Amino acid sequence: MKKILKYADSNMNRLVSELQTLIRQPSVSAKNEGIEECAKLVKKTLEKSGIKSQILRLGKNIPPLVYGELHSKKNPKKTLLFYNHYDVQPAEPFNLWDYPPFSAKVKGNKVFGRGSADDKGELITRIKAVQAHLKVNGDIPCNIKFVIEGEEEVGSPNIGKYLRKYKKKFSCDGVIWEFGYVDSKNRPIVGLGMKGLLFVELIAKESKIDVHSSLAVLIKNPAWRLVDAVKTLRNSQGRILIKDWYKEVTPLTKTDLKIIKQEPFDELVFKKEFKIKNFVGNKKGLEAKKALVAGATCNIAGFVSGYIGEGAKTVLPGEALVKIDFRLVPEMDPKKQVQRLKKHLKVNGFGDLQIKVYHGEAAARTDPSEPFVSQVRQAANESYGKSILNVSNAGTGPMHSFVQVLKAPCISIGSTYMFSRIHSPNEFARIDLLKKTTKCICLILDKFGKT
Amino acid sequence: MKKILKYADSNMNRLVSELQTLIRQPSVSAKNEGIEECAKLVKKTLEKSGIKSQILRLGKNIPPLVYGELHSKKNPKKTLLFYNHYDVQPAEPFNLWDYPPFSAKVKGNKVFGRGSADDKGELITRIKAVQAHLKVNGDIPCNIKFVIEGEEEVGSPNIGKYLRKYKKKFSCDGVIWEFGYVDSKNRPIVGLGMKGLLFVELIAKESKIDVHSSLAVLIKNPAWRLVDAVKTLRNSQGRILIKDWYKEVTPLTKTDLKIIKQEPFDELVFKKEFKIKNFVGNKKGLEAKKALVAGATCNIAGFVSGYIGEGAKTVLPGEALVKIDFRLVPEMDPKKQVQRLKKHLKVNGFGDLQIKVYHGEAAARTDPSEPFVSQVRQAANESYGKSILNVSNAGTGPMHSFVQVLKAPCISIGSTYMFSRIHSPNEFARIDLLKKTTKCICLILDKFGKT
Repeated sequence: MKKILKYADSNMNRLVSELQTLIRQPSVSAKNEGIEECAKLVKKTLEKSGIKSQILRLGKNIPPLVYGELHSKKNPKKTLLFYNHYDVQPAEPFNLWDYPPFSAKVKGNKVFGRGSADDKGELITRIKAVQAHLKVNGDIPCNIKFVIEGEEEVGSPNIGKYLRKYKKKFSCDGVIWEFGYVDSKNRPIVGLGMKGLLFVELIAKESKIDVHSSLAVLIKNPAWRLVDAVKTLRNSQGRILIKDWYKEVTPLTKTDLKIIKQEPFDELVFKKEFKIKNFVGNKKGLEAKKALVAGATCNIAGFVSGYIGEGAKTVLPGEALVKIDFRLVPEMDPKKQVQRLKKHLKVNGFGDLQIKVYHGEAAARTDPSEPFVSQVRQAANESYGKSILNVSNAGTGPMHSFVQVLKAPCISIGSTYMFSRIHSPNEFARIDLLKKTTKCICLILDKFGKT
Repeated sequence: MKKILKYADSNMNRLVSELQTLIRQPSVSAKNEGIEECAKLVKKTLEKSGIKSQILRLGKNIPPLVYGELHSKKNPKKTLLFYNHYDVQPAEPFNLWDYPPFSAKVKGNKVFGRGSADDKGELITRIKAVQAHLKVNGDIPCNIKFVIEGEEEVGSPNIGKYLRKYKKKFSCDGVIWEFGYVDSKNRPIVGLGMKGLLFVELIAKESKIDVHSSLAVLIKNPAWRLVDAVKTLRNSQGRILIKDWYKEVTPLTKTDLKIIKQEPFDELVFKKEFKIKNFVGNKKGLEAKKALVAGATCNIAGFVSGYIGEGAKTVLPGEALVKIDFRLVPEMDPKKQVQRLKKHLKVNGFGDLQIKVYHGEAAARTDPSEPFVSQVRQAANESYGKSILNVSNAGTGPMHSFVQVLKAPCISIGSTYMFSRIHSPNEFARIDLLKKTTKCICLILDKFGKT
């Protein structure tokens, strides 16, 4: 193992340069920008590192999935699967970036760019860890598989279909999730779950066009209507007011609570980073930690109506649009929740609003008592000197589909510094963490292969 | 007079072509786009028609005012002033225009373009009416003055200063207002008043940047905050809930009510034009007419926060902004109302919102018993065959400043078809109405000069 870790260490320049190449290929799934090109680039990157690769397709208008695999001579009976994604979030607003979002600027310990952390940085650590084993031993400790999709940032609408179609091809004994956070004290978080997500758009329309606002005495304003409608969805403490929204939710188990209590959370550092004074509903301590693990939200992700340019324009908008994401916790079924939302709007007199459902994804959690959990944790402790166990990430991923179809435990571990501004301007990856994570994955392969 | 009206008739091609030239010079005051260029073009247009003109300035960053004047030999003791503006509203959203907004496309009876009706179309009728008198008689029936400002569409923030500085130069016995509507039955509206306006921007800020929406469990969402804040401003019937908002408002007089009752208002045509089913608060008949004349509003003119592009982006916005215009009725003082709004937000727990006041303008009305009113009405009846008297327009203009400083009655009469989409895409002027209005102004000059 020493040789392997040393190889990973000495190979960092190549890792950074390959990461830069990946960042420089925009791949914004929300806009279908550069998706095909990036899939091809990822295939090439896998192959250059000695991993057999192919591009899988479901249909013409569905972004392809890049698959990679390599068989172990030593232990052909165990398979570890890496799930990652090659698509990125839109880079807007462009003007807030210090460097162009797809320029992959390296400055000191940081690689800047959209996708540098989420998820191209994570992906490259997995590839380079496999390569380190290969280069040193000419073999790997267990079979490995790569499932790299192109729609994670738009809610992975087709990953379930891919998983079902290629169920046999993707079969495995454990999944390393696409990311893992590292906290402000350089402790990697070994994550056992993800929240679900329901993303919807509500549209209010009134007059066929924007009109002069002097007519507001008579013509209804769709922006007002949308304000009135969304105001009914939650109270100022963040509690969702839709009937039965929390109906199926079960309380946290004793084990979960114990893990949450042990998990460190530096409120001050967190608040300082985002320059905020208080949390939603004035949460503090354990309540704040519990919210991150198990809190459901109703978040306005976007709102637009009327004239939003500079200066004054006395206009009565013809239309108003709001984008809302709901984070879901275990046992909330996205399909049921959509029906509840629709019913809520109807009952409250907003049945005329158009509702567009972008996607729904259920939450998922891996049992903390799985042996795979302690293997990953040990590798993390060795590589980082310490680690943190986490019941569920506050974010969303299609973990539910993996757990359901592949019946394998999923664990997230990775290189993403928790303040690395993913989904925001000036997203970056830290080179020191890319290095530690590559070595951590080397160790996971070793430990997993031995059992 | 016959000769003069005939001259106006035969001169329509030139009128339309000069209007096209004016439209083709964009002059968007909200963006300071083409303002200087348009002022020069208007000066040239006046001079070409035989009216002496000069450009007046208050300061470097204030749009200039174009002044024009001509003395009457026959009656040098009476002066009629034309108030107009050469600036236009922003043309966004561009994609909804059938022809480019500054191309001045003529199709059949219509001239399309931003400013075609509001206010370049109106301006050209005044200029051409003066020219008709000049060409036929070598004189005009009374002195005339033109005050053509460049900031009407951003609330005329400096017209008061111009009026006070050039009080003597602008002195007059009557003012023809910058526009006048013509209803769907080709009846021009002789308007005696304007509502006031208060335009503000409210900004909510929370985290320093947009962040990943998984953090919505802890970080407050400024879009939610703004929704909560604006929701307190009015009820769903349109009634403004700010304390003392209506305190100084006096009920309509008997004369006002009589005029309102006589005023025709075709609800069905109105609703069909805007494709709407019901009015705000389900108003009908006299109540709807009273609202147009004397209703105060709180209108969301623009709302923006977070990701408003295509598709899904799970973002928690760092900022949210709303633009609100309040229409004011007589006795509402914009300065007082700003204070009431600020107090309201503070009392309701929104003292942290940033408030930007764009401008305030009080309402104004001319006494229906003024002799000038019957002169204008007679001219309108002769030129259009009929006319309608109106206590106050639903829109806003700086009439209050004119009434206060110049102490002259103001009347609006003009060529703007009431569904000509001013402030909206595909704004147009009707050539038949431009012709009738030019002749109406010819007649007003004659009648006014005789008294």
